[in-house]
Amino acid sequence: MAEHTIGRDAPTHTTWDACNEPVGRIASGDVVHLATQDFSGGQIRRDSTHQDVPALDFGAIYPLAGPIFVEGAEPGDALAVEVVELRPADWGYAFLSPGLGLLPRDEFPEPYLKVFDLTAGAGGATRLTNGVEIPIEPFLGTMGVCPAGGRDVPIPPPHRGGGNIDLRHVTAGSTLLLPVLEPGALFSAGDAHAAQGDGEVAISGLECDMEFSLRFTLRKGLTIPGPQLRRPPGSLTPRVDGDGWYGTFGVEPDLMEGARQAVRAMIDHLGRERGLSREDAYLLCSLAGDLKITEVVDAPQWIVGCFVPDAVFVAG
Amino acid sequence: MAEHTIGRDAPTHTTWDACNEPVGRIASGDVVHLATQDFSGGQIRRDSTHQDVPALDFGAIYPLAGPIFVEGAEPGDALAVEVVELRPADWGYAFLSPGLGLLPRDEFPEPYLKVFDLTAGAGGATRLTNGVEIPIEPFLGTMGVCPAGGRDVPIPPPHRGGGNIDLRHVTAGSTLLLPVLEPGALFSAGDAHAAQGDGEVAISGLECDMEFSLRFTLRKGLTIPGPQLRRPPGSLTPRVDGDGWYGTFGVEPDLMEGARQAVRAMIDHLGRERGLSREDAYLLCSLAGDLKITEVVDAPQWIVGCFVPDAVFVAG
Repeated sequence: MAEHTIGRDAPTHTTWDACNEPVGRIASGDVVHLATQDFSGGQIRRDSTHQDVPALDFGAIYPLAGPIFVEGAEPGDALAVEVVELRPADWGYAFLSPGLGLLPRDEFPEPYLKVFDLTAGAGGATRLTNGVEIPIEPFLGTMGVCPAGGRDVPIPPPHRGGGNIDLRHVTAGSTLLLPVLEPGALFSAGDAHAAQGDGEVAISGLECDMEFSLRFTLRKGLTIPGPQLRRPPGSLTPRVDGDGWYGTFGVEPDLMEGARQAVRAMIDHLGRERGLSREDAYLLCSLAGDLKITEVVDAPQWIVGCFVPDAVFVAG
Repeated sequence: MAEHTIGRDAPTHTTWDACNEPVGRIASGDVVHLATQDFSGGQIRRDSTHQDVPALDFGAIYPLAGPIFVEGAEPGDALAVEVVELRPADWGYAFLSPGLGLLPRDEFPEPYLKVFDLTAGAGGATRLTNGVEIPIEPFLGTMGVCPAGGRDVPIPPPHRGGGNIDLRHVTAGSTLLLPVLEPGALFSAGDAHAAQGDGEVAISGLECDMEFSLRFTLRKGLTIPGPQLRRPPGSLTPRVDGDGWYGTFGVEPDLMEGARQAVRAMIDHLGRERGLSREDAYLLCSLAGDLKITEVVDAPQWIVGCFVPDAVFVAG
C-alpha cells in the first residue's frame, strides 16, 4: 500500500470528462492526500457580502481534485472510497441564492451570505446567529467517478457514478462505494462542506476549503447501480443526540411539494418559537435540518418531514 | 386533570366524519386510555397465510378508537397529543400486497404474509427470519383529527390534520401536534405498529392490536399548517445506534423514482450480502429501513437514500 500526495498546485477540473488527464495513478489499497478550494473556487472570501452571491461566475465553480486513475478498475467493478481524514479550513460560508433552493424565488427574493468561524474544527461548533450553533461535521459534497463516455459534463447534477451527491453522512470513517463507469474509474472530489443537513434545502452547505485523505479499494466484479454507503458503528447524528428534535411535515400528493411544505412549516416554527429571521431559519434547515420521507405508500398522499435538532439552540 | 378509559367494547369508526358520535368528552390536560384492533380489524389472525392477504375486506379496515371531543377546541387551535404509554399485543404481522407498495406489481406479484412473536414487548426484538431481528418500537400509525367538514372520508390517505401518517417517530414520550379543523378536534387513533421504517415502503408496518394512553393538551391560538412532532431527548434511532448502517441511493429527476431505485438497490444488496429472499428484504426495508431525501437542490437530479441498520443482523 502506498500513499500519494496531490498538492494544491495540481491542476483541477470543472467538468466530468474522460479525457481529463489523471493527476495520479494508484493501486487498490492506496491512500491519497488531496486538497480543494471551496465550491466557488475562491470567489467568496472572508470579507464577501450578500451582493457577491449574484456576482458568482458559474463557469468557474466546482474545481475538483483529480481525476485519480485506479489501476485495474473497469466498468462492472465498484470503487470503495474510505474517508480517512477531513481537515476543513478555519472559515467557511453559507448562502441563499434566489430561485436556486427548494423554495421559489418569490419566497426568498434576496441573496444572503453568512461567513462562519471554523477554528473549532471537526467536533466543534460554529455560530449561525445569537443562540444557534451548528456542529462542525465535515464531508466532501462531491465525490464521484467520470460518467461513461463523459465529455465536458457539468459537475452540479449528481449522476449514478456519484459526483455532486452532497451526502452529509460520508463523514470520516465512512466508505462510499461507486460503480466504475470508465477504465481507471477516474475519481474526483471537492466541494467540501463543514456541515449540511439531509436535503441541503437552501442550495448551500457550509462551504469551505478542505484538506482530505482517502483510501481507495477496488472491488472487482461488484456491480452496483449507483452510490452506496457503509457507515461505521454509531448514530447517524452523533453530535446532536443528547437533546430532542422538532419535526414539521408536508402531506401532499407530490414528494417535492411535501418537502417544500415541511420546510415552510419549519421556517415558520423557528421564527415563532426561536425568534429566527426567515433567512437564518432557512439556512439552519440547510445546514442542520434533515429531510425524511416518513410515509410513501398511503396513496394518494405522501409525507415528507423536516427535522431540526434541539442541540443547535444554546444559551444566547 | 382527569383520566378516562374508553373500553374495547366502545364503538369504532372506519371513516372520518364530523357526525361520528364522540366516545368521550375531555378537558385539556386529560389522559385517555384506549385500545384498538390491528388495521385489518381482526381479519388477519395468528394462523393466517399468504392467501388471506388478497381476501382482506377493505371496507372493514382501519377501525379507529374515537372520536374524542376536546372541550374548547376550535379551528385555529392546535391539539398536542403526548404518547404516554403503548402496549402492543403479543403477536403481529407484516405483509406484501401486489401493487400496493412502493414497488410495482410486476416486481412483487405474489401476496406474502409473515406473523411475528411480540412477547418480548417494547424494548425487545422479534425475528423476521434466520439471523434478522427487528427492534420492537411501537407507535400508532393513525393519529388524527377529523378533516374540516369531513363526511365519510376514507381513512387510508393522511391529511393535514394527520390521520394515517404512519410516523415511526411518534413513540412513547413524543408529542404530536395537530391543527384543530372541527370544533372539539374529534381526535381518533388506531392502526398500531410494533415497528416500521421511514416510508413503510412495502405497504405494511408490523401491524398489531395495541392498548395505549394519550394525554391531550389544547394549544389555544396556535395555528399550524399540518402535523408537527416534538421528540424527547435522544437519538431518533436509539435501538440500533450501537452498530453501523448501510445506505443505497437513487439518483433521479423524480423523488418517487429515486425512492424506488434506492429500495431496489437495497433489496439487491440484502440478497447478495445477507442472503435474504427478495420478499424478506422488502419487508425488512418496510419494518426497519429509513428513506431520507439526502439532496434536493442539485437540479435536475435529486437523491433519495434507503438506510438499513446493521443492528438487525444477529447470529443466525
